Amino acid sequence: MSKHSFWEARYRLNRDASIPAVLQTFEETGRIRALTRELREGEKQHIFWESDLAKWLEAVFLHLQKEEDQELRDFSERLIDKLIRNQEADGYLNSYFSFHEPDHKFTNLKVRHELYCAGHLLEAALEHLKLDPDSRFFAALEKYIDHIAQVFGRGVGQKRGYPGHQEIELALLKAYEYTGKAKFLELAGFFLDERGQAPHYFELEDQKRAEYEKPVDYSEFPSEVRDFISWHMSGLKRRDHTYYQAHQPAFEQKTAEGHSVRALYMFTAMADYARLTGDPQKIAACKVLWENITCRRMYVHGGVGSAHIGERFSFDYDLPNDLAYAETCASIALIFFAERLMRIEWNSEYADVIERALYNVVLASTSTSGKAFFYDNYLEYIPDFQKFQHRRHGVRDEYHTCSCCPPNVLRIIADLERYIFSQPGEEIMVNQYINSEKSFDLGDGTISIQMESALPWGGKVRVVVSSNSNQPRKICFRIPSWDSAPKILLNGEPLKLKPESGYLGVEKVWGARDVVEVDLNLTPYVVRADPRVRYNANRVAVFRGPLLYCMESTDNSSHLNQYLLDEDPKFTEIPQDQLAPGAIALETEGYRVEPSTTSLYSRSRPKRSRARLRLIPYFLWSNRGECEMLTWVLEDSRYGLSS
Amino acid sequence: MSKHSFWEARYRLNRDASIPAVLQTFEETGRIRALTRELREGEKQHIFWESDLAKWLEAVFLHLQKEEDQELRDFSERLIDKLIRNQEADGYLNSYFSFHEPDHKFTNLKVRHELYCAGHLLEAALEHLKLDPDSRFFAALEKYIDHIAQVFGRGVGQKRGYPGHQEIELALLKAYEYTGKAKFLELAGFFLDERGQAPHYFELEDQKRAEYEKPVDYSEFPSEVRDFISWHMSGLKRRDHTYYQAHQPAFEQKTAEGHSVRALYMFTAMADYARLTGDPQKIAACKVLWENITCRRMYVHGGVGSAHIGERFSFDYDLPNDLAYAETCASIALIFFAERLMRIEWNSEYADVIERALYNVVLASTSTSGKAFFYDNYLEYIPDFQKFQHRRHGVRDEYHTCSCCPPNVLRIIADLERYIFSQPGEEIMVNQYINSEKSFDLGDGTISIQMESALPWGGKVRVVVSSNSNQPRKICFRIPSWDSAPKILLNGEPLKLKPESGYLGVEKVWGARDVVEVDLNLTPYVVRADPRVRYNANRVAVFRGPLLYCMESTDNSSHLNQYLLDEDPKFTEIPQDQLAPGAIALETEGYRVEPSTTSLYSRSRPKRSRARLRLIPYFLWSNRGECEMLTWVLEDSRYGLSS
Repeated sequence: MSKHSFWEARYRLNRDASIPAVLQTFEETGRIRALTRELREGEKQHIFWESDLAKWLEAVFLHLQKEEDQELRDFSERLIDKLIRNQEADGYLNSYFSFHEPDHKFTNLKVRHELYCAGHLLEAALEHLKLDPDSRFFAALEKYIDHIAQVFGRGVGQKRGYPGHQEIELALLKAYEYTGKAKFLELAGFFLDERGQAPHYFELEDQKRAEYEKPVDYSEFPSEVRDFISWHMSGLKRRDHTYYQAHQPAFEQKTAEGHSVRALYMFTAMADYARLTGDPQKIAACKVLWENITCRRMYVHGGVGSAHIGERFSFDYDLPNDLAYAETCASIALIFFAERLMRIEWNSEYADVIERALYNVVLASTSTSGKAFFYDNYLEYIPDFQKFQHRRHGVRDEYHTCSCCPPNVLRIIADLERYIFSQPGEEIMVNQYINSEKSFDLGDGTISIQMESALPWGGKVRVVVSSNSNQPRKICFRIPSWDSAPKILLNGEPLKLKPESGYLGVEKVWGARDVVEVDLNLTPYVVRADPRVRYNANRVAVFRGPLLYCMESTDNSSHLNQYLLDEDPKFTEIPQDQLAPGAIALETEGYRVEPSTTSLYSRSRPKRSRARLRLIPYFLWSNRGECEMLTWVLEDSRYGLSS
Repeated sequence: MSKHSFWEARYRLNRDASIPAVLQTFEETGRIRALTRELREGEKQHIFWESDLAKWLEAVFLHLQKEEDQELRDFSERLIDKLIRNQEADGYLNSYFSFHEPDHKFTNLKVRHELYCAGHLLEAALEHLKLDPDSRFFAALEKYIDHIAQVFGRGVGQKRGYPGHQEIELALLKAYEYTGKAKFLELAGFFLDERGQAPHYFELEDQKRAEYEKPVDYSEFPSEVRDFISWHMSGLKRRDHTYYQAHQPAFEQKTAEGHSVRALYMFTAMADYARLTGDPQKIAACKVLWENITCRRMYVHGGVGSAHIGERFSFDYDLPNDLAYAETCASIALIFFAERLMRIEWNSEYADVIERALYNVVLASTSTSGKAFFYDNYLEYIPDFQKFQHRRHGVRDEYHTCSCCPPNVLRIIADLERYIFSQPGEEIMVNQYINSEKSFDLGDGTISIQMESALPWGGKVRVVVSSNSNQPRKICFRIPSWDSAPKILLNGEPLKLKPESGYLGVEKVWGARDVVEVDLNLTPYVVRADPRVRYNANRVAVFRGPLLYCMESTDNSSHLNQYLLDEDPKFTEIPQDQLAPGAIALETEGYRVEPSTTSLYSRSRPKRSRARLRLIPYFLWSNRGECEMLTWVLEDSRYGLSS
């Protein structure tokens, strides 16, 4: 990425502000001291703390792969030492269990995140291996995976189990692709295939544990606690295997169910497994799940997993705005899934969803300071409402007890290049218009692509292509979902191209310097939801290019649902550099509806008058103190009637 | 009440179906066996079981006051014996504490419902006293109250406490009015005046208990439970005195806060206390609270307490339909408060709210079988939504572990006569048009009123007045909020009367037989909410007379938010006797909006086509199996624009 671009600034914020800030919270809360048994009075190691460190390390290694930083390098090498020093002779590597429950290893896969931690450690170790071909971190993890492959399997004395929180599957498939070692593919396949089989492993495991574990006697809890447990925990006490996507074998699942991050980590692994095994039925199964999510269970900002109890998928079209969960990690996992599908086939839908989640949920999840993060990503926020619903406040926090999201943001921003280009076959796909430079080895030569993009604030994209090959080669430029007919010029000459699966393919023998210009239309527009999304009836969401916009009460009056947008709103673009360099706010003339009586209910209509509405990019919300926020704004129209 | 009327049928259902059904659940679950220490293996006495029995007894006594039933009388007398046999020598009467925690009496007023149980027992005993002037039940309760008055007070060694769940205050004021004994008034005044004073009694109590009670160590709970506790219990762990309306002295409170039933039982007592002490400032304080509730915190069906976590009031205009709590008991308590205010002054608002809550929430809370009850009263119900929000299902249950609502319904239906007439001064107010007969002693003679009303299905009301007094006397007929100009005839002659505070006052020397006819307009109409109620933007609620209507998917297609009502809808009335004798459904031609693309989000508008909508009375919903339900239907209009 070249300097001074939008994403370059975001990348630097990640490296310079977020990585140190997240590390600081991990150090302060004992995650590093725990590895050397140096916890302080009152501190208690948590079962998935190692996964937090692993994700942080992975982000660091991704940065170090691009740019050396001796201090960060030294620190991370010392952290690796602390982590792997706890490895046991047989390869087992999880300090929580080694220190606190050595007899309970792999006895509660359902809820205890052991294999999840192994997966994140393996992912981090793989990025370390790219920095250091003799990585002792990867060696330790390979030894641990070999141990896991001995414990789990279909042989005599082996456990036919699988993780309650998926993650290791996708890590194993990454390891297979990078090392070529079949054992990684086989173990991933085992975990995917065993899932949801009868007899149910989690039930067998529960029965076994019941022989020695004292069951929790909920009736002995104070009554005030008991009530909450009986109401809210019913799903956990029941045999709700959908929560863990263990209700059916993985490739037989048709809808996205249960905990959204678990589900999407699994779908990501499924897509890789389907591609690597070349099984068309498995590929088809992944596309059924993709379609269920993106056509029926995804928020307009790219958030998924709408139900806050259980952080989970619920049912088709259930997308409440004020109650939204839409965990940051879930959108990151959706991006993973989309990227894996993009490796299988040409279809701009995948890049569209990546763009949607990246520019909205992922960007929004971090404060402009880089130091505070959202866990849930509301689409409507009213401070008192969330308070009385006992939901998290609409203010980013520097620390979350359950810290999965911040380091996930670190690693996806550090790995952004992955999403820009792809090569599913012979063609080179330009999926995201983000400043970058990349060379592709064609066998008979190379193609180098240098891209400069003004997105998201400007619509001009300039791509310089240099090749030394004599063969014609197709470079495909994505048509974004929000501009069906972008202007495209080759060396200054307009091209008339027929779209193919959402891309404009320019095929030619590329010379020493060909220039392709793509001119994207950033006129603000509104989108409407399928009317089965009951929350959005007669409402619109405002976009400019890939950016969702929202109203904040800071710029308007409170009670944002008293505003109406005109049916065909015209927006004025207002520079708002004080929010973020280059940022553009939108203003339009609409209406504000006011009560016409003092009665709470009456036969009379409320009255309305012209009013200005100001919207800001959604990803910048809540950077000026806590206030109301609204994405889906009421439209001044007769619902369903064409204007 | 005369036979064959709507309310007579409801009254008989209460007596013949609901009273036995509720008793059966109480017997089966051990509430009666607990009194004689005969609980079975696994059964555990609950701290407020006696209040359930007290409310059931009160309903029975109210019925017995109108009509003898030897079997019910004998049973209830035996139950009284079982209850009062547990009274201790000093008067203490609460079998839970006597049996299980004799050393903890009155040590945790904040959460342990001891004084609440005393209040309900006193209310029941007062109704028994009306049946039996030598009531041993009332004698036992008077002894218990004397004991309480020794324990609590401002003297040396007395506790300056007050109940965490209000109830005893209103019971004491009933006792004062019926017996004339000042001690009851004084104790009620003490509890009201001490509330919210500094130093805070609940904090002192917490400190004292901490000396001997082991604190609950939440950190030792399983992590899955701990999360829920930290999220949901934060309000209970914090010193949130608003929950108990103990954040300020009672008469200084300006808004309805905290647990809705606690709040409204207290407001009811406050109104009685204000009236009985004749303090205009206290009366004004009650009216401020009334205005806050009815103008900003009340659902269109008369439900209050919108937040399900804590069963509580939240903030102005926060009235979500699908998440509504709107506990049955809270609407019953709102009716109590309104009835007390109606004793203070002429104002048809009070009777309007009583009517709204009675015909909608209270009626809806019971199944047509009379045997199953709602605890929460949703205004929109989508089975999967409530399931994923871990809320109660939209099906009435025969038994609720926390059984406060069913016996509260029993006693308000048994006591319905109370709400029909009132006599705040010289005038006789006709507040509800319900079949009834009543005589009023005027000093110089009597007036007898016999009323026949076709409500809610028909609008004709016929009132026959007979008097032997020579003095002119005013009888005031309420103008319902839904018919601002009812036709009124005196002996066949139309009367032109100027409304006074929402009533039409007919003043004359009444003869041996004067006939007043009131003809109420039952043309269906729609109401709109204050636009600050964000959930109801561009939506209307359909009414016919006092009855709110709703759509059920049983009569329409699913996804009820895809329907639109015309801006000025005309309804056809359809008899629907299979739902309830005389019931009327409404049909109208509106629209159904359908997706116009397969995309979840798109720039195109959905399309619409003409469709029939059928609505049924809200109180009859969910009597034909679980299905979707909607009260606030989208309107085909430009929001805020006069048509």
